[in-house]
Amino acid sequence: MMVRKLDDAERAEALASLPEWTHEPTRDGITRRFRFDDFARAFGFMTSVAILAEKADHHPEWSNVYNRVDILLATHDADGLSQRDIDLARAIDALV
Amino acid sequence: MMVRKLDDAERAEALASLPEWTHEPTRDGITRRFRFDDFARAFGFMTSVAILAEKADHHPEWSNVYNRVDILLATHDADGLSQRDIDLARAIDALV
Repeated sequence: MMVRKLDDAERAEALASLPEWTHEPTRDGITRRFRFDDFARAFGFMTSVAILAEKADHHPEWSNVYNRVDILLATHDADGLSQRDIDLARAIDALV
Repeated sequence: MMVRKLDDAERAEALASLPEWTHEPTRDGITRRFRFDDFARAFGFMTSVAILAEKADHHPEWSNVYNRVDILLATHDADGLSQRDIDLARAIDALV
């Protein structure tokens, strides 16, 4: 499936609907930091995200340190932010 | 449990026994990069590491991009590399 980069108006509209996410201009991606009570809860969340990502065939770039999870969503094939990132961000937001 | 930083001789001996790991001097930690066939296998590995880490009550700093997993082990309480990192590195190596 071809996927194209969002244009400026589409990006602005998408970001307005995802207030917890921040645009990362270097990659033209979006990032969000999540904090949990402990590692087990953080990793449980990651497991849910992994399943969403695999179903969507669209995967995050992410890191974890104990109770913290940092997620960056960007679309390599589009060289920036695409609708697939927005859809995955919404699905992740629905988990928490 | 108090945990102390390894001294230079202990660190050298431990690193010699962990040839796949690289000393990271800024943090006095050790790092290893793992690559898998795909995301599902990478995340399956991460799940096994998470269980090891939780059992050991010692957690990695790590990141994942698709089939790649980067792990840094260091001991915050010891301000550097401790025996707990070495033990976890060995347990992780035993998974792959």
